[in-house]
Amino acid sequence: MTPITLDQLNALSATDFTAALADIYEHSPWVAEAAAKQRPFATLNALHEAMVAAVKAAPDDARMKLIAAHPDLAGKAARAGSLTRDSTDEQMSAGLDRLSEADYARFHKLNDAYKAKFGIPFIVCVRRHTKDSILDEFERRLAQVDAAETDTALGEIFRIGALRLDQRITAADKVPITGRLSTHVLDTHSGRPAQGVAVELWELSRDGSERLIVRATTNRDGRTDAPLIGGRPVPRGTYELRFAIGGYFRNCGVPLPDPPFLDIVPIRFGVAEPEGHYHVPLSASPWAYGTYRGS
Amino acid sequence: MTPITLDQLNALSATDFTAALADIYEHSPWVAEAAAKQRPFATLNALHEAMVAAVKAAPDDARMKLIAAHPDLAGKAARAGSLTRDSTDEQMSAGLDRLSEADYARFHKLNDAYKAKFGIPFIVCVRRHTKDSILDEFERRLAQVDAAETDTALGEIFRIGALRLDQRITAADKVPITGRLSTHVLDTHSGRPAQGVAVELWELSRDGSERLIVRATTNRDGRTDAPLIGGRPVPRGTYELRFAIGGYFRNCGVPLPDPPFLDIVPIRFGVAEPEGHYHVPLSASPWAYGTYRGS
Amino acid sequence: MTPITLDQLNALSATDFTAALADIYEHSPWVAEAAAKQRPFATLNALHEAMVAAVKAAPDDARMKLIAAHPDLAGKAARAGSLTRDSTDEQMSAGLDRLSEADYARFHKLNDAYKAKFGIPFIVCVRRHTKDSILDEFERRLAQVDAAETDTALGEIFRIGALRLDQRITAADKVPITGRLSTHVLDTHSGRPAQGVAVELWELSRDGSERLIVRATTNRDGRTDAPLIGGRPVPRGTYELRFAIGGYFRNCGVPLPDPPFLDIVPIRFGVAEPEGHYHVPLSASPWAYGTYRGS
Amino acid sequence: MTPITLDQLNALSATDFTAALADIYEHSPWVAEAAAKQRPFATLNALHEAMVAAVKAAPDDARMKLIAAHPDLAGKAARAGSLTRDSTDEQMSAGLDRLSEADYARFHKLNDAYKAKFGIPFIVCVRRHTKDSILDEFERRLAQVDAAETDTALGEIFRIGALRLDQRITAADKVPITGRLSTHVLDTHSGRPAQGVAVELWELSRDGSERLIVRATTNRDGRTDAPLIGGRPVPRGTYELRFAIGGYFRNCGVPLPDPPFLDIVPIRFGVAEPEGHYHVPLSASPWAYGTYRGS
Repeated sequence: MTPITLDQLNALSATDFTAALADIYEHSPWVAEAAAKQRPFATLNALHEAMVAAVKAAPDDARMKLIAAHPDLAGKAARAGSLTRDSTDEQMSAGLDRLSEADYARFHKLNDAYKAKFGIPFIVCVRRHTKDSILDEFERRLAQVDAAETDTALGEIFRIGALRLDQRITAADKVPITGRLSTHVLDTHSGRPAQGVAVELWELSRDGSERLIVRATTNRDGRTDAPLIGGRPVPRGTYELRFAIGGYFRNCGVPLPDPPFLDIVPIRFGVAEPEGHYHVPLSASPWAYGTYRGS
Repeated sequence: MTPITLDQLNALSATDFTAALADIYEHSPWVAEAAAKQRPFATLNALHEAMVAAVKAAPDDARMKLIAAHPDLAGKAARAGSLTRDSTDEQMSAGLDRLSEADYARFHKLNDAYKAKFGIPFIVCVRRHTKDSILDEFERRLAQVDAAETDTALGEIFRIGALRLDQRITAADKVPITGRLSTHVLDTHSGRPAQGVAVELWELSRDGSERLIVRATTNRDGRTDAPLIGGRPVPRGTYELRFAIGGYFRNCGVPLPDPPFLDIVPIRFGVAEPEGHYHVPLSASPWAYGTYRGS
Repeated sequence: MTPITLDQLNALSATDFTAALADIYEHSPWVAEAAAKQRPFATLNALHEAMVAAVKAAPDDARMKLIAAHPDLAGKAARAGSLTRDSTDEQMSAGLDRLSEADYARFHKLNDAYKAKFGIPFIVCVRRHTKDSILDEFERRLAQVDAAETDTALGEIFRIGALRLDQRITAADKVPITGRLSTHVLDTHSGRPAQGVAVELWELSRDGSERLIVRATTNRDGRTDAPLIGGRPVPRGTYELRFAIGGYFRNCGVPLPDPPFLDIVPIRFGVAEPEGHYHVPLSASPWAYGTYRGS
Repeated sequence: MTPITLDQLNALSATDFTAALADIYEHSPWVAEAAAKQRPFATLNALHEAMVAAVKAAPDDARMKLIAAHPDLAGKAARAGSLTRDSTDEQMSAGLDRLSEADYARFHKLNDAYKAKFGIPFIVCVRRHTKDSILDEFERRLAQVDAAETDTALGEIFRIGALRLDQRITAADKVPITGRLSTHVLDTHSGRPAQGVAVELWELSRDGSERLIVRATTNRDGRTDAPLIGGRPVPRGTYELRFAIGGYFRNCGVPLPDPPFLDIVPIRFGVAEPEGHYHVPLSASPWAYGTYRGS
């Protein structure tokens, strides 16, 4: 789907505007229809807030229908390929399309237990999570008392809506639920930024599997040209940065033993705030290194 | 085999002494027989040097027979279980008894190529190596010119002999080819040694497999009660120390996010000198850590 | 003197332009006069280069007169207060107005020896130096052979001219001989930038004296609002940053012994490249700290 | 005074034993006399405890006389040179013999105020303190209520007695009130201990003065041959270690700018526990360094 600008959206007829944003809220074009009346929107956030307000102002049964319209996570519809395009992309982002049979069974059981207890599907803004943290969240919320879960579900729906808007629309501002993960490599052998270090970011799962998120090479400032993760939430979970520092020092002509003391340096860390700024730098000589959480 | 003391060895009859050390040099009791005449030995090293001198003083063909008496690494004899007990243990120490079929095939091919080129079996002191470094050494030596390989083989045989003596005999001194790997954990949050940190040492292979070498817990000095590797060579290769620092800080009552920024801290490093002293400490707060090669 | 904009300068009459820039080159308005003809200048650098070109294109004796027009460093004219305003400010910037009698005597002797050897006054762009590095430079250049010193003197004059332009004129660009010194404080106890840390930058002399350059307090990013030194060269010399980290942690409510292990943390470092970018950060817990040269 | 061994002491007549230890407790030979009856002493600590027990078992007025027998700190007797030899050495150890007139006046005023309030002289085990911490202690105790000060004074007297015994007697054990200050330098440029680094330990006062405590050079293990302070308390106060790391790297042939980024590295730290073990190491490349409190 080609992104559309906020200005273009503001200029559409109410019908076309509603059509363009029909699926920001799952199977609920009435949210876009309500927001259409408040145009023009100066910012993406203003549009987001108008849609949130429309949901909040709607009658109870409309809101419950909106909640009920959400598919199960890793459920039958997902496996059958009959989700909305947004839902499909979202579930893929956390790897829910590549689960083992055991994991599918676990999701299935949790979905059923949740629906049995609360009468609504389990809704979570998947783009803020990894598979592990979704399962943690599932268990945690399944243990809650009834009252708050509808509110929690709506909160997640608003996050989903915000991120869908962000992906669909080109605007000067960003929705307020993006985070950032960046790095920097300092060469303490030569006292300068380390240029040309190959860096990989991996997502690690508790079951021992790992998923490559991005590969990059440091530039002359010792940074990557773009943040490793930026303009979107940093999914809650465990990560490992892997820095090819041995190859870097070899290329610099530094004499090294074989094998070098440091070759691939792994830095493993957890992300608890998807909207946080995580700066995870490496300062290294061939014989010593350090890291910290910066921001 | 129960260890014997150097004093006991000195007191044996020549025949019993020779029998006791018959297999220090592979299938070559004549080495022990020659050394028996020089008793008593004040130190283990003096005994080791006497055996080395006996090999060096022997006629060329005796030395070539000694070389030829060594089995292939990961060869048919090994797979058939017909090695000497020492050779079996040594090959197990580097995991040569648990190779994949592809690895067995690779060793087989290298053994044949080496014998075809040099007319002798490939001999290496396995206890100084990991599978990866044996294969590296194999390739490197296969590319050498003929002349020096016999000397290289003898040098390896002397190392093997030294380590076999060391395992067999209780003495006040150690043979000169042992190394050490140790660690220490400093808690920079509280400015004291970190007690009770679970530490694991893993050996990593290039094929992605890994082998647990030892598990330990830090004591009140932040050290492990014994070195992670001590009293023997540190096999050349790549290792990963894994420190359960998240659990440590949780036990200390330090408030941490979920997941914590640091949970398991991996430190990956290479060992190039099996006789070296490798001190690989960790200093960590919940948000920053560093390491270096100490000694 | 009120700064003037580059646009205003471009719009002046040739006479007024020459008057405005008469003393960019010491007692030599003809340099400005020559440059006036090439107006308008798109950038400050273009103006600087035009003045440099005018000096280079002038007859030899004009250039030698320009060189000869420069006052001695810490010389009689300086002590009598009869320098140009620019020269006065420049000599003050390196503390040459507050020398001990012994230092005055040393400068006097070096000035005389230099003039006796080379027939010209010793010229150096003082704003790139501290007293110590001026003396080092003096000794170094006094030991040179004759030929190159005139060129060296001219090079320094161009640097002086560039910095005088930069101070006099408001423009979008900067002359290419400015450096930067900055810092950052990371709290590794809490994993966040340290806000509210008092920082002092001192210049240290070999004679044991020290001079406060700037005081600042870190903001919520752990940085100072402005670089400690910026928009000008970082004078060659030795510096000490002093961070009041003990007070910071006390304010954070962290339990500390009395006295705390870390209270004022001094970081002493040398600056060899006045045009370099020196980022000298501190990462600290109450029990450990580290620093490095960043950029 | 030549040290005497514990065995020699045990073998002396009661009279000679008492004479030998007459001044362990200031002007109070009766303490030694009482202890003499309990010989032989297996350890120095047993002797110390016997003397402490003798003081505790003595009638009140004997104890009060012992307290009253102590001289003022930096008082008239000290300035007149009429103290016991032990007291003279002790007051010198904290630099109380080299005070400014202002400091003498301050001590004089505090001595008088303390005596006026509590009726006893202010007693503190000077060897555990620096001038600054004595003054802090003085102010702190002057603000106490009466009751506990006699006990506090006795506690200090026992510490003084223990350290006097330790200096006078050669034994296998040490009294339990000694601390240690040590360092280590690691070269992270080359991954080995830094040998030949000149190290100085300075004591810093709040008035800006500083006192050299010890100079040493690191050995091949990167340590000093002896602890910087050992076998005695580490006086409470502020210290600065100064490492000549620039000269070290220059000697190693590492290319460095002029001036080097790191030349003398100062590490300033406070000591709050005179009986603590303070290990303050430096790990450094020419461009980065770190330290921490170890033990």
